[in-house]
Amino acid sequence: MQRYGTVAIIGVGLIGGSIGLALRARGLARWVIGIGRNEARLANAERLGAIDAATTDIARGVAEAEVTVVCTPVTRIADDVVQASQSGLAKMLVTDAGSTKLKIVEAVESNPRACAAFVGAHPIAGSELKGAAHAQADLFEGRVCVLTPTERTPADRLSRARSFWMDLGCRIVEMDPEAHDKALALTSHLPHAVAAALAASVPGELLPLAAGAYRDGTRVAGSDAALWAGIFCENRLPVLNALEAFHSRLDAFRNSLDAADEDGIRAWWDAAHARRGLFDELEPAPQTGRVDGRQ
Amino acid sequence: MQRYGTVAIIGVGLIGGSIGLALRARGLARWVIGIGRNEARLANAERLGAIDAATTDIARGVAEAEVTVVCTPVTRIADDVVQASQSGLAKMLVTDAGSTKLKIVEAVESNPRACAAFVGAHPIAGSELKGAAHAQADLFEGRVCVLTPTERTPADRLSRARSFWMDLGCRIVEMDPEAHDKALALTSHLPHAVAAALAASVPGELLPLAAGAYRDGTRVAGSDAALWAGIFCENRLPVLNALEAFHSRLDAFRNSLDAADEDGIRAWWDAAHARRGLFDELEPAPQTGRVDGRQ
Repeated sequence: MQRYGTVAIIGVGLIGGSIGLALRARGLARWVIGIGRNEARLANAERLGAIDAATTDIARGVAEAEVTVVCTPVTRIADDVVQASQSGLAKMLVTDAGSTKLKIVEAVESNPRACAAFVGAHPIAGSELKGAAHAQADLFEGRVCVLTPTERTPADRLSRARSFWMDLGCRIVEMDPEAHDKALALTSHLPHAVAAALAASVPGELLPLAAGAYRDGTRVAGSDAALWAGIFCENRLPVLNALEAFHSRLDAFRNSLDAADEDGIRAWWDAAHARRGLFDELEPAPQTGRVDGRQ
Repeated sequence: MQRYGTVAIIGVGLIGGSIGLALRARGLARWVIGIGRNEARLANAERLGAIDAATTDIARGVAEAEVTVVCTPVTRIADDVVQASQSGLAKMLVTDAGSTKLKIVEAVESNPRACAAFVGAHPIAGSELKGAAHAQADLFEGRVCVLTPTERTPADRLSRARSFWMDLGCRIVEMDPEAHDKALALTSHLPHAVAAALAASVPGELLPLAAGAYRDGTRVAGSDAALWAGIFCENRLPVLNALEAFHSRLDAFRNSLDAADEDGIRAWWDAAHARRGLFDELEPAPQTGRVDGRQ
């Protein structure tokens, strides 16, 4: 039943908070320790029941942990993984929840002790909302968690990482870090950039005439600027390539429209419609509205 | 209570069906006559309670109507308005629900009898779903309906059109047809084109790694191809201009990313975030999930 003694979570926001809630709701850990830099936010996460205890000291927080999950912004994850692994027990598993993987994995693997403890992970779940206040115990249920082991990842850590994320409700997909980053550039980072470009393309005074297409198309533009600027820069080249792919698709439309080629537009639209239909078959619509457990 | 004797609806799909349901739910009309080209679809709309009776003959359907609402695809609206106005009572108001206005209004005004009966309208409500089966009696509640009168629109018809759309729950905004089309190119047609381009940009084999940002960003790509090819072509130049505006916004992002300018990306994102925040202030999130009363 209680699979873990102590689990430490570094960064108790939407994702870290949801991991804490899930561990506690499922009775998986005896202790869930939250680690962060901001005491007020930690106190809030504790009050919300996402963690049992809190500290701003990584070394202290991970001292007893069997598993440490790093849920800080992507630009800070590698440092936090290294720091945790220096202080933790020799048997500790360290995993993360970062939206990019290649740079993180490379940085972690340059440190032997961190490399021996670490399995890169990306649970594909989230929302545009921020902070433990929006955390949900069921955020990971049925969601894909990509693990990005390399030839340097110890087999026992990989096996424990699989179990850990499955315990939270995830389905496991394994990819190498570079393939992960290329895929997510298209499936997640591109949709975020497009949403933000779309949001700003409509002048404020016309917003009363915007409705569902704008609302849904720009929802994720409500996400945190610093978080996303970090993700884009960490995954710069794959995102630039994804933008090229998108540009070509939109240019095909522009050219058909310029030529008033209604049949061409219809064929272009049909292809998009079919792709979206394929997604719907894989991914039934969620029950809830705004906080939807997906990013 | 019962404000209208007979109301005729030409085109009983999602929008026409919702108008019928709203008229009947609110007890506004004694008779709601559905007019269409497909008998099976008309029978279905009648079975669903969206209309009281049906015919495929426009002249017969509008013969007793005080109000005729044309809800066919934009490329057919002007013809249907002209045809209805030739057969209807001298006092009849004809209005429509088309997503574009300039070409429709120009075509209608070239016919004196149609011009004397017509007030262009666009209730900004809908969804990616199609057909009377998805119609909702409350589709128009609280939604904006843009009326596009010109100097040739008779004052009494304008006043009756305002009342009619308000009776269905709409808030009225009046604009000239050209201003409407330029605004909607940005607020609705652009988001649809972007959604379709985004949908097709992600290869099918990567869709299992797509989640909420893709799902919401591409929802309206599930809309009908013929319907949207028609809208884009009817509103060709404003849509081409809207694409330019969007391209500039996305290029600004691309250039910052190319230069690895994290601060520039953050500032770019902040502007988008603020614009989206402005929209949220105007437009609280709907209660329902997929069919959301907005297009």
